[in-house]
Order: sequence, then C-alpha cells, then structure tokens
Amino acid sequence: MMSFTLAEARAADAADNLRPLRDLFHLPEGLIYLDGNSLGALPKQAAARIGQVVEEEWGEELIRSWNSRDWIGAPQRVGARIAPLIGAKPHEVIVTDSTSVNLFKLLVAAARLSERRTLLSEAGNFHTDLHIASGVADLLGLTLDIAPRAEIESRIGADTALLLLTHVHYKSAERFDMARITARAREAGAMTIWDLSHSAGAVPLELNGSGAELAVGCGYKYLNGGPGAPAFLYVAEHLQERLVSPLRGWMGHAEPFAFTDDYRPARGIDRMLAGTPPILSMAALECGLDAFDGVTMARLWSKANALFDVFHGLMEQRCPDLVCITPRLPEQRGSHISFRHPHAFEICQALIAAEVIGDFRAPDVVRFGLTPLYLGFEDLWQAVDRLAAIMDSESWREPRFAVRGRVT
Amino acid sequence: MMSFTLAEARAADAADNLRPLRDLFHLPEGLIYLDGNSLGALPKQAAARIGQVVEEEWGEELIRSWNSRDWIGAPQRVGARIAPLIGAKPHEVIVTDSTSVNLFKLLVAAARLSERRTLLSEAGNFHTDLHIASGVADLLGLTLDIAPRAEIESRIGADTALLLLTHVHYKSAERFDMARITARAREAGAMTIWDLSHSAGAVPLELNGSGAELAVGCGYKYLNGGPGAPAFLYVAEHLQERLVSPLRGWMGHAEPFAFTDDYRPARGIDRMLAGTPPILSMAALECGLDAFDGVTMARLWSKANALFDVFHGLMEQRCPDLVCITPRLPEQRGSHISFRHPHAFEICQALIAAEVIGDFRAPDVVRFGLTPLYLGFEDLWQAVDRLAAIMDSESWREPRFAVRGRVT
Repeated sequence: MMSFTLAEARAADAADNLRPLRDLFHLPEGLIYLDGNSLGALPKQAAARIGQVVEEEWGEELIRSWNSRDWIGAPQRVGARIAPLIGAKPHEVIVTDSTSVNLFKLLVAAARLSERRTLLSEAGNFHTDLHIASGVADLLGLTLDIAPRAEIESRIGADTALLLLTHVHYKSAERFDMARITARAREAGAMTIWDLSHSAGAVPLELNGSGAELAVGCGYKYLNGGPGAPAFLYVAEHLQERLVSPLRGWMGHAEPFAFTDDYRPARGIDRMLAGTPPILSMAALECGLDAFDGVTMARLWSKANALFDVFHGLMEQRCPDLVCITPRLPEQRGSHISFRHPHAFEICQALIAAEVIGDFRAPDVVRFGLTPLYLGFEDLWQAVDRLAAIMDSESWREPRFAVRGRVT
Repeated sequence: MMSFTLAEARAADAADNLRPLRDLFHLPEGLIYLDGNSLGALPKQAAARIGQVVEEEWGEELIRSWNSRDWIGAPQRVGARIAPLIGAKPHEVIVTDSTSVNLFKLLVAAARLSERRTLLSEAGNFHTDLHIASGVADLLGLTLDIAPRAEIESRIGADTALLLLTHVHYKSAERFDMARITARAREAGAMTIWDLSHSAGAVPLELNGSGAELAVGCGYKYLNGGPGAPAFLYVAEHLQERLVSPLRGWMGHAEPFAFTDDYRPARGIDRMLAGTPPILSMAALECGLDAFDGVTMARLWSKANALFDVFHGLMEQRCPDLVCITPRLPEQRGSHISFRHPHAFEICQALIAAEVIGDFRAPDVVRFGLTPLYLGFEDLWQAVDRLAAIMDSESWREPRFAVRGRVT
C-alpha cells in the first residue's frame, strides 16, 4: 500500500465493478468531494424528479396529490426503502422530522416505560444528542450521566433507563458493537437508542439481528437526501404499541381526518409522525435512496474498506504530520477517516481552496468521508497528492486560511 | 349582490388592480382552485428557483452552500419576511419544523414559566393543537381544559397558565379578537398562544399591536410555501430570553459548531431551532413569500372581502341548501367560507369532478378558500355556477361520489 501509485489507482478504478454507480451522481468538474458524510452528493435524477413534484404534483394536481401521488404515504414509503439498508422490517422505519426531534420522541417515549431515573450517554457524542437528552432529563426529572467512551459499559447500572449512543462517532468514526452493547444493556434492564446518522448507508447494519429496539438517523449524509432532508426513526415491531410519542401531531393520529378532539395514537410506527411532512425534501431523499437499488451494503462496505486502506496508506506515506484517529479494523469504524493536527482548521481551508472538500471538526480534526457510491481510487490519490503539496509547502500558513467564519 | 352576473364578475376582474398578482402563480387550465387555505398554489418562479437550489447550490456548491448561499441563515431570513405580514419585528419570527412541533416547544417552554396547572383550549380547535396540548399536559402533569367557544373567556381562571387558540377557525373561519382576548388572559395572569395557520397571509394581523406574546403558523396555506413547507414561530421580543425550548437541538445552541457537551441556548428566537432545516422546502416557502412583495395585507384583505361578499351572495341565491356557517362581518372571520350540508362529502366530490376544488371537513362541512392573490370574481361565479348545476340536478347522488378514500 505504501507505494500505491496513480497508475495503480486508475487500474483499481477500472477493475471496480461498482464504478458505474458514480454516474448516478452529479460531481462538479475538478472537485474531489470527501464530505458525503456531511451532505451527500446530488443524485442526477433528483433535479428532474423534484421538478416533476413541483410542476406536476404541486402545480397541476395541487391538493389532490396527497392522495393521487401518495404524498400522504411518503413517510412510510420512504422509510420502507431505508429498512433494508439497516436490517429492519419495512414497517419498522418511518421518515419524519429531524434527527433531533426524532431522538426527543424516542427518549421521552422510552423513558416513560421505565421506573429508572438515569439516561446514559457518551462524552463527546454528537452534541445535538447530548443536548436533546439534557432537555429530556430536565423535562422528566431524570439524571443525564455522560461518561467517557471507555467507561460506558461499566456505567450501565440498576438505575439506567436508557443508553443513548451514536453507532459511528461523528468525529473519530469509532464504531460501537451494536449487538454486544444492546444485549449488555438489556441484561442490565436498560434499553438502547442508537443514532445511526454516520452509519446508515455507510456500514452494514443489522438492526433486527443485533436486537436493536430503537434508532434514529439522518437523511442527508450517506443516504444523499439533500440539504436538511427529513430524518428517519426505527422502532422494533414488538415495542411499537407500547410507545406513545410526546409529540402528538395529527399525522400520528389513528384517524387524522376524523378531526376529533381526543387523541388516539395510530397503530404501529405511524404514531411517531407529528406534523405534515416536507414533501419536496422527502422526494429528494427518495432519489438518494434510488442509488442503493440493486447493490448490497456488503458490497459497498467492501469497496469502502478498500478506499479506506488506500487513503490511510497514502496519508501515512505522504502526510505523516496528520495523525489518524480512526481505527484501522473495519469492524471498529465507519466509512469516514479523521486526522488530528494542531492546525486542522487552516489545513482544511487550504485543502478546500485546492478543490478537495473535507471538513473541520473543532478543535483539531479534519475529516474525510469515503463514500463508495461515487468515489474512486484516483479521487483519493489526487486528494492526498494535493494535501501533501499543502503540507510540504506549508501553504496552509497563508493568513487567508486562518479566517474563521461560520463553518459547517 | 343577488343579481351578480357573469358580465359583472368580468367587469370586477377588469377593475381589480390586484389582478396582476394572479400571473405570479401557475393555475391549471380549466380548474377553479378554492383550496389555497389547505395548499397554496404554485408560484411560477418556484420551479426555477428550486431547480437552482438543487442543481447549483446542492449539486455544484455542495456543503459550501451552508455558508456561501446562506442556507444556515434561512430560518431567520425567511422568518423576517413573514414578520411584516403578521405585524411582528423581523427578529421575532423564525421558520422551523412543523406547526405541531413548534406548538409543542412554545407550550412546554411557556408552561414552565408558570406555577399554574391548567392549559385552556377550544373544543373543536384544529385537532393537532388539542393533541399536542394533551401530550404536553400529560408530560408536565397539567390539566387540559377544553371548553366550547362561547365559554372560553369565562373559563380563564386563577389556575390558567396558558390559553391556546386558533385565531381563525379551520372549519367555520370564525375569528377571535386577538387583542381583546390576549389582554383578558393577561389580566387574569395567563399567557396566550395563537395558532395563525388560517390567518397568516389571509387576514391583517398586528401581533405586536395586539399584545400577542406567542404564536405559530403554517407555511403551506396562504403563504404558498408548497406541500409540507416548514412552519413559523413567533416569540415577542421581551419573552425571548426567558423561554427555553424543550427540543434542544444543535441549531438552537449558542455555538452550534463548537461541538460542546453542555447546552447553552442561543440568544433570541434562534434558540427555538432544533435540527437541520429542510432547505429545498425552505426555498419553496421563500418563493411563496415573494408574491407578497409590494402589496399590503390591508389591500389583499379588502379584495378578500369583496370576493367573500360575491361568493356568499351567489351561494344564497343559487345554492340555498348549503347553509353558510361563516360569519358575514369581516372582523369576525378569516378568508375562507364554509357551508354545512348533510351530504357535504358527496357534494365536495362531485364539485371536484367538475374541476372546482374545495375541501370537505368531517362530518358535514364543505370549505372554500378565497385567496385574493390569485382568485378573481369570474372564478367564483363559475364555481357557484358549477355547484348550482350539481345541486339542481342532484348529480352528487351518483354512487361514485360517495366512495371514501383518504381525504385531505
């Protein structure tokens, strides 16, 4: 791997039988996009499909499209398409609201099933998860215990109602062993809620097989659903009738169009809906999911691992000052790779100026998404080549790269 | 009015100086659309604008658009454009989530400012409002008192924490006197939350002038934001620093990109944000708001009243079996008009088959939105003419019109 050449990269692309999937996406000329873990690339068909939703469904059919174009069924229909990617049954997944809002629903609904008073999560978890959990703790009079990663399992105790974990860490890409931890928590009498934002569409997931009961995840990262795409929510079949959402919107009612004053939750996962779903954003997510048709997560993951090894090897060889914080072993990580450097911010800015997009995560991490659907080996070779030039020349020290604005 | 003829309708359209606004919208050939109170018509420029967001901003700029195209500022920017339509300051309105979710945030945040234990709302209020309120009552251990409209004011008591009212009733179009009731509640030590779903963009609103402190509203009705457009939320300036959202998502954090474990709410109304906003749907809403540029709500309301009088008069004359349940006086109602009939469902279906779209509201109401931005007097004349033909011939009795499916 140490001597992986441009010619070898090209040969690897030529031999890659997933290569045709790249043609499903619009990739800007000259740009190397290693940020699909933050915002997935545009599926080529999305513009036409969204145009159709706007011009035909909204413009011509108007309100009738709720029935005639099945807008009303979009949360379930799109959820059912995510299900096979995460190892769930079609009726166990629904698309609605944002990850934050969905997390709130599941935390409250699940916490109210338990007499226990503690929510347990990880220090340095994606902050929206911790903030939502702190809001829930505050609301229900619970304790939020935030433990370092290494201590999570030992902190599961007799008072732990819920364990809230992000399956693949947004920064380091470290991955929890879902089956083992879910079982460990359950043995101790606790339920686990998994945040799959950096897992869904990235790593093979077997929610049913892992005994997972509750999960949420993001639509706009590896699922390529477009900016701010609605999120998804998973509730294992056996729990669905026991959970009641604290957000009792009309779309989660047993009879949304009966207009009755009393609340009766819909059967199954439908009760986790709240308000009217954003149809245009939902249509974009559906286009993103089309790219997964006919390809298994196992095949994608196999390519992701090859990409990871190439990128990791090239970085070790050519950019040794950037210290990898992502585990090497596939089963211990997700599909992005991160590096630490005291000047990660400036390096990231210099790299963006060189048309390689990764992202900076405070305080000192630069992160690259290795999305097998649309990235090839030459992309990675070129990216590291440009990064090596920046590191060798120290061009990241130019004052313009130190200007901090709002950074996503 | 009784003898308002087609020629007079055409003359009224010719004399209407708001008539050019109609050209901003796509209206399907031959269709008369009286359901803009449920889903506003498509602004003509929306297809191109959304195409630009998809192809340029998402496709080419990718993640950089959060800064370069100010996606990150969309909730505030679009909120500030709604503000003048509802008589609020630009920084008092933000666009986010759905009406249901926003109502939840305000109910919980406001209820927690009070020692009182009762939420008061109206029987027959739009059901999502009652369901969300019942969820909040359940969560916080409060009592939800649902009173008939005529008793609302007398039920405001020493234990009333919050009064939750829909300003214009979704079914009857009856309108509450916002200033008087807000003052009455405040005198009794209660706060009022107004649902403006059937008011914003429909009737003149002066939230600041009425002393209103909290409100929510819908983006896809009179604001023409497209199916499932995000909703808005209003918090009066003086309350903003006192409210803390129960949905503590990262977008409402003081420093969303500092990635800290602790939650510190953003200043002002920004703290009411939760997750990542749906950018495509947000862009559509922005197009909807463009139609209000350069026209005051007072002028629109003046035309809406003329439309109302014409429609009401024609219906009295030609469809006397449909009993109007909407008040005649402008200050007592909104911009739609509703009629009761034991066979409202079948009549509504027959009317849709005749290319006139109104909607049915269970159990016995047919409702027509009279949206002055894109409706003219001839539209109303033709609509009543087709309805009169259905009533006179009793064609609504055809079995096909009795088939009940999912109805929005």
